[in-house]
Amino acid sequence: MVKKVGVAILGLGVVGGGTYQTLVEHHDFYLKTQQVDITVEMVLDRALDRLAQLGVPQEIIAKNIEEVLANPNVDIVIETIGGIGVAKDFVTAALREGKTVVTSNKELICKYSHELERIAKRNHCGLFYEASCVGGVPIIRTLLDGVQANHIQSMMGIVNGTTNYILTKMTYEGADYAEVLKEAQKLGYAEANPTADVEGFDSMYKLSILSSMAFHTKIPYTKIFREGIASVSTKDIAYGRELGYTLKLLAIGKNTEKGVEVRVHPTFIPNSHPLASVNDSFNAVYLRGDAVGDVMLYGRGAGALPTASAVVSDVIYAATHSEIKYSTFKNNATADKSTNFISDFSSAYYIRLSVADETGVLAKISSIFAKCNMSIVEIAQRGKSEVGENGQHRVPLVVITHKTTENRVKNAVAKINATDIGTVNAVIRVEE
Amino acid sequence: MVKKVGVAILGLGVVGGGTYQTLVEHHDFYLKTQQVDITVEMVLDRALDRLAQLGVPQEIIAKNIEEVLANPNVDIVIETIGGIGVAKDFVTAALREGKTVVTSNKELICKYSHELERIAKRNHCGLFYEASCVGGVPIIRTLLDGVQANHIQSMMGIVNGTTNYILTKMTYEGADYAEVLKEAQKLGYAEANPTADVEGFDSMYKLSILSSMAFHTKIPYTKIFREGIASVSTKDIAYGRELGYTLKLLAIGKNTEKGVEVRVHPTFIPNSHPLASVNDSFNAVYLRGDAVGDVMLYGRGAGALPTASAVVSDVIYAATHSEIKYSTFKNNATADKSTNFISDFSSAYYIRLSVADETGVLAKISSIFAKCNMSIVEIAQRGKSEVGENGQHRVPLVVITHKTTENRVKNAVAKINATDIGTVNAVIRVEE
Repeated sequence: MVKKVGVAILGLGVVGGGTYQTLVEHHDFYLKTQQVDITVEMVLDRALDRLAQLGVPQEIIAKNIEEVLANPNVDIVIETIGGIGVAKDFVTAALREGKTVVTSNKELICKYSHELERIAKRNHCGLFYEASCVGGVPIIRTLLDGVQANHIQSMMGIVNGTTNYILTKMTYEGADYAEVLKEAQKLGYAEANPTADVEGFDSMYKLSILSSMAFHTKIPYTKIFREGIASVSTKDIAYGRELGYTLKLLAIGKNTEKGVEVRVHPTFIPNSHPLASVNDSFNAVYLRGDAVGDVMLYGRGAGALPTASAVVSDVIYAATHSEIKYSTFKNNATADKSTNFISDFSSAYYIRLSVADETGVLAKISSIFAKCNMSIVEIAQRGKSEVGENGQHRVPLVVITHKTTENRVKNAVAKINATDIGTVNAVIRVEE
Repeated sequence: MVKKVGVAILGLGVVGGGTYQTLVEHHDFYLKTQQVDITVEMVLDRALDRLAQLGVPQEIIAKNIEEVLANPNVDIVIETIGGIGVAKDFVTAALREGKTVVTSNKELICKYSHELERIAKRNHCGLFYEASCVGGVPIIRTLLDGVQANHIQSMMGIVNGTTNYILTKMTYEGADYAEVLKEAQKLGYAEANPTADVEGFDSMYKLSILSSMAFHTKIPYTKIFREGIASVSTKDIAYGRELGYTLKLLAIGKNTEKGVEVRVHPTFIPNSHPLASVNDSFNAVYLRGDAVGDVMLYGRGAGALPTASAVVSDVIYAATHSEIKYSTFKNNATADKSTNFISDFSSAYYIRLSVADETGVLAKISSIFAKCNMSIVEIAQRGKSEVGENGQHRVPLVVITHKTTENRVKNAVAKINATDIGTVNAVIRVEE
């Protein structure tokens, strides 16, 4: 029993173009293996040369969104425009027409999933967005249909390929941040304006979507602590390696009895942790469930075809599971207000200081940490003595703490900076 | 809109017991997050002390299978007995009664999925078996609903925890196979009769199920080449490490234009491959799809709660997706006969020889490989000269070949063994 499905694609850039090609080239394969006959009924994009380059037949090029929405053969609208401008208008209009939407748009889903899901529900159509998070890796499907028997206790993800590429280069080639960023921009791995990636906004949107699903409560992105990689130094990466840690930009969500902790920041993890060997532009999400234990999904988090894989898998899912219309967490009505967000979160820390090269300094620094109720795992001098601005000899000191809290660390850093024996140059959180 | 679902559990051993506990303890959680009210209506197990230990109330203990099947409140039957004796009879009877079955039984599904699915279809009920492969890792859900947009070109899996535990110990502690096996048996990681695990039968069943789904055609286990780990030597593991390879028991499926290749055997993979760092009893499956590229799923492949996670996730899936009744590949009717199975498969090889410690031996060995159309990447003497049975001085020689075929290797091995200058002591396939 073959099911006929017509789709329209809005925006044929990298992901939309990959989606078009995947659907056209795999038509017969899906017919045979999934019993769905998927036809691209319409496409909408102002870049007509791009459409020509993709070989899109003239007769399926729509003039405007109205033409797409008026087409009764279009069952599913694929939105691969991005951003929250026209993309939001078009998605809203499609849902109002009762057309199921499949989107790769993380910012849209992060900011407006509630609103859009209400519209979808009212109009008896579906909203699917596997492609919005971690490209081709089926992390949303896994959270919804694969490990849903579990209380998810934590998730840690490398969910941005650009920053992982940069950190990998800094780690294994010792290159500086600015240098690697420039190279990444030349190769097309980083955008001309890299802010969304390197400052952690992209990871933050994805963490909002994924932790909302994992923890069955809306996690607004405004509640997420965010720190990017722009001030990460190659020196700290190297010192960390010597101590057995690898630096990654992690999106971390924890769901404890005390509340929810959500944060994006450069993080040291043990070299033996499965996430530590996720390199280059690869992504991975590491989940801990109360029954299943630790689970990791690994793959390409971006790119035309990997993301198209997620878009098209959603299209097939939508076409073959007509009962399941809302691919999101189910208790969104009441959960928001009851969630307690922890801002003074707990973590171990790597702290690099520059201290006076004098007898007794180590004891003085240690006693400041002790007074701030922070317990130290390791304290070690790294590198050689240097002459500082004021002519004082200075030496780098690296401290690894036991688990403590943000506020205690801030307090200790302020106390040390107020002395004349040391300055804190870097603070990096450590997860096990 | 809450959905009421009654389940019965047949067999409350490790997995069945974990399933019972998970369902009871998470009842309210599933009600809240999944809108399903799942009640364990009946359990069936002859070990009444085990049931008492689990705290099963007297009134839900069934006397026999007939009582379970006659209970109109039982919508879903969970089979966690194992094997193909009563398990098969009970599953068949349940499906004939129109009750959806969720099972963790790999041997049953590997050998009888076709027959059981026909019965399920005829009786309008479902058959689900995520728990039959790789414990809590949602690999079946991923193949069916996560990467179904792809032609899956290959899969490589570490799908047996016992053998991975043994190989990890041999690799990192240099212990001998027999020694580690004994320890694993003492710790309960290996069974008293370890054949199913160490000889690769368990991996073979799982590969049959997973490759059937991935390649959309029935892969009978009888078509799978199988070699276990019982004759793996610690020496080869150590030599391989020196050359940059880690030894794993891999279940490998390849779907090429020429046909399907399916095999289970000890395999060297580069140390940098994500599967190389999957250690101890952890499992992982590495897929390559034509759109998504490389994807890996990692987690616990066995154990009470991880496997219960898969069983219960299937129960929730079955309860909330009433349209989707057959969790298997869809074109099973005709595919079998058209599939071409390749037995003379291609691979690179690690070959360890013991050769006479004389000038010119290396040249002679090399020329035999050349005559057999095998090209060599690396040939190196390892370890020290030893005196052999006939008083001849012998030295270990390790050869890494380029990609070649099984038959060529067999031919070269026979030719070398026929000379008086060398004997082949180990042949291990190498994958990239």
